[in-house]
Amino acid sequence: MRNPSPGYAITVRVEAPASAGATGGLVAAVQRAGGSLTALDIAESTHDRLVVDVTYDASDADHAEEIAEELARVPQVSVRKVSDRTFLMHLGGKLEVNPKVPLKHRDDLSRAYTPGVARICLAIAANPADARRLTIKRNTVAVVTDGSAVLGLGNIGPAAALPVMEGKAALFKQFAGVDAWPVCLDTQDTEEIISIVKAIAPVYGGINLEDIAAPRCFEIERRLRDELDIPVFHDDQHGTAIVVLAALTNALRVVGKEISQIRIAVSGVGAAGHAIIELLLAQGATDIVACGRAGAIHAGQSYDDPDRQWIAQHTNRSHEEGSLRDVLKGSDVFIGVSAPNLLTGEDIATMADDAIVFALANPDPEVDPLAAGEHAAVVATGRSDYPNQINNVLCFPGFFRGMLDSGAKNITQEVMVAAATAIADAVKPEELNASYIVPSVFDPVVAPAVAQAVRAAVEPGDGSAPGRTTPVGKVL
Amino acid sequence: MRNPSPGYAITVRVEAPASAGATGGLVAAVQRAGGSLTALDIAESTHDRLVVDVTYDASDADHAEEIAEELARVPQVSVRKVSDRTFLMHLGGKLEVNPKVPLKHRDDLSRAYTPGVARICLAIAANPADARRLTIKRNTVAVVTDGSAVLGLGNIGPAAALPVMEGKAALFKQFAGVDAWPVCLDTQDTEEIISIVKAIAPVYGGINLEDIAAPRCFEIERRLRDELDIPVFHDDQHGTAIVVLAALTNALRVVGKEISQIRIAVSGVGAAGHAIIELLLAQGATDIVACGRAGAIHAGQSYDDPDRQWIAQHTNRSHEEGSLRDVLKGSDVFIGVSAPNLLTGEDIATMADDAIVFALANPDPEVDPLAAGEHAAVVATGRSDYPNQINNVLCFPGFFRGMLDSGAKNITQEVMVAAATAIADAVKPEELNASYIVPSVFDPVVAPAVAQAVRAAVEPGDGSAPGRTTPVGKVL
Repeated sequence: MRNPSPGYAITVRVEAPASAGATGGLVAAVQRAGGSLTALDIAESTHDRLVVDVTYDASDADHAEEIAEELARVPQVSVRKVSDRTFLMHLGGKLEVNPKVPLKHRDDLSRAYTPGVARICLAIAANPADARRLTIKRNTVAVVTDGSAVLGLGNIGPAAALPVMEGKAALFKQFAGVDAWPVCLDTQDTEEIISIVKAIAPVYGGINLEDIAAPRCFEIERRLRDELDIPVFHDDQHGTAIVVLAALTNALRVVGKEISQIRIAVSGVGAAGHAIIELLLAQGATDIVACGRAGAIHAGQSYDDPDRQWIAQHTNRSHEEGSLRDVLKGSDVFIGVSAPNLLTGEDIATMADDAIVFALANPDPEVDPLAAGEHAAVVATGRSDYPNQINNVLCFPGFFRGMLDSGAKNITQEVMVAAATAIADAVKPEELNASYIVPSVFDPVVAPAVAQAVRAAVEPGDGSAPGRTTPVGKVL
Repeated sequence: MRNPSPGYAITVRVEAPASAGATGGLVAAVQRAGGSLTALDIAESTHDRLVVDVTYDASDADHAEEIAEELARVPQVSVRKVSDRTFLMHLGGKLEVNPKVPLKHRDDLSRAYTPGVARICLAIAANPADARRLTIKRNTVAVVTDGSAVLGLGNIGPAAALPVMEGKAALFKQFAGVDAWPVCLDTQDTEEIISIVKAIAPVYGGINLEDIAAPRCFEIERRLRDELDIPVFHDDQHGTAIVVLAALTNALRVVGKEISQIRIAVSGVGAAGHAIIELLLAQGATDIVACGRAGAIHAGQSYDDPDRQWIAQHTNRSHEEGSLRDVLKGSDVFIGVSAPNLLTGEDIATMADDAIVFALANPDPEVDPLAAGEHAAVVATGRSDYPNQINNVLCFPGFFRGMLDSGAKNITQEVMVAAATAIADAVKPEELNASYIVPSVFDPVVAPAVAQAVRAAVEPGDGSAPGRTTPVGKVL
């Protein structure tokens, strides 16, 4: 499937004759080879030669090379250089750390550094709650991974995971003004990860766990929640669950069904599947059947994995056995957080009328969205090139903005549901339809609405009300 | 000693009558109480009342309060609010993390995040050397502390140390464009600190250890140098030693002596003292006597502490015993990195002619600089309110700029001496005099000169020459 994507954007610098049809020939070459031309810039122009930067999207790395070769075959054209825009963008990384205070002269240094800073240190030493007011702890989240489950790439390790974590941090800042820092750990030992995160916690107001493989991620998340005094959020679990709930809320509005009346088939019982099931049950779902690789999870089986055991005990009331296909028959909702190409359009046709399909496996969904769309009322994926992109960016920036501002520690189900509601309600009733069940990630109302909802939903008295802090100003 | 300092800058908002002499009365009050007025701003003005912001430097917190009370006693004046500028500057911390890449629309996201970022991850997974090119590892240093030896405050712990580490990071960026991130560890166990720093290392191109108490800092620094493939620098040791060497180099030029011919008395055998002694010996000093709390360190004693034992074996050839006062007699140079108020002007008078005194205890030096100046030819301290401030800011930003750019790992004595030479040579011969032996920290030539010298001095083949990295551009 030749589907050009900006993820494979290439700029080729060519020399071409300075003739009337020259650039047309370049455009045609890109088109012939199936590329999507996005820019054409004359870099140099002389009496008889042009130097042209031809920028196009390809569908993958091989395709990018084919298009460049097609350009090279244009008569009298020679290729000087091929530059990959994605690689260029990553040179030196995607983040920088900047001072927020002036450091232009001696007096500035005396306040921001020695000796003035000593008084700030003493204030915090005397009153640890002041750290949330007087340091970056107020606004900063650690994005923590061990690189064991990165995107669709699997266990690539901490150094290779860093570009994703940098991107995550950039999104935190861009969408909600939250400072975020990548913490890529060169260990996959559960106990070591827990104790390292506890050791680095003084700097941070929250922890965002990311791309840590199941089942270790469950233990790590649970233990850190217990042992830290700042919020701990596993985006692959909680972020996905929140956005899925938001999307489902709106999809049910579109088809006119109630969550307590529907049958939901879930494919995938890892981090995301488990959290989705938990949250949907909390929201009133009563009929969920989950499938792992070996078929339906049911209480007739016993599972060594306690998280899987929990799913067996809280879902599949009828103790159905069988494959995903079997379970899917007559279901109102399919939620896939598993693997690509498990189902066909025919399988979707066996679902109930007005079916809802969320095929979220990344990068290739459980079922082809177009095929699913022939049989289901509402289809969503994780992809940006189809409608209804279920994207965690809708949640985590505003979510942490709210948690940091409230000073609360506990991420309760109420807080998660409040965030999901805010996301769903960002789609106005007059905008809501089968192809628009979640807002665009670029809709500027989303992050503030999520932050607001989180702030309102945290438990009163949770975490740090400012309490007795050293006064910055006082009245004599 | 009432010595107003911008580290204690206060703004008091007062109401005063709208009369001709009103503001004069406020100015006089500040002066009477020994404050240093730095600003006077009319915030509001009505027919009969003024609201005035009076800003002044005090010498300490109590003094600041006395001055505010003096203002309150001015007839018809009432104080509304007292604001501490240093505290205000620290609200929410002093650093922020910003994206370096655009994230304005979907195509941006496709390159900086999924799916484009996956290709960058795969490139690094295939070729780990690419991390230095394609991630923040290229430009980022971790500032690592456990809060056990912060400034003159001692063991205040990681949360209270954070403002200092934030300040350090701000200086790295301001002076040399190096991205630096605070790592404040909630553990003081040597082995834990070592393994945590190793675990977080994938993100960083260098480690700057800071404010970790001796003797643990020696072990931590040595082990990390052995076990990491990025440079490890303990600023309290190496940074201080480098700047001391630079200052001594120039001071010796001023008085016309050679390093191999002079007798040097060192007070303080912790991290800084040890590193200074090492570096001076490497530069050709032959006659150093070091004193700890119990007097001269000499080979006639045996010391449990191996670092102290090393000093005993490499200094004090004549096995002198006795106090610091004894050792100081006839010395050409005194270097103090110990404790305040150990010596008087009379002690300095017992030194050789054209003595050089570096009294670097912070915040109060080993000897009063003015008293020392009556007897010595050159006096330096760590303080910004006397000439010749020996400030590590002269070293660490440019130093890491050079190390990061060269990709080298080993901080050899050659590299340290090269940095010291660059700092010393930033003082031009026509500028050099007894009151100007080190450049100002705000002299923009210093950091680039240090970086250049470091790049030139690293061992060829050390660390990562780029080697075989994934091409960003290629010629077809």
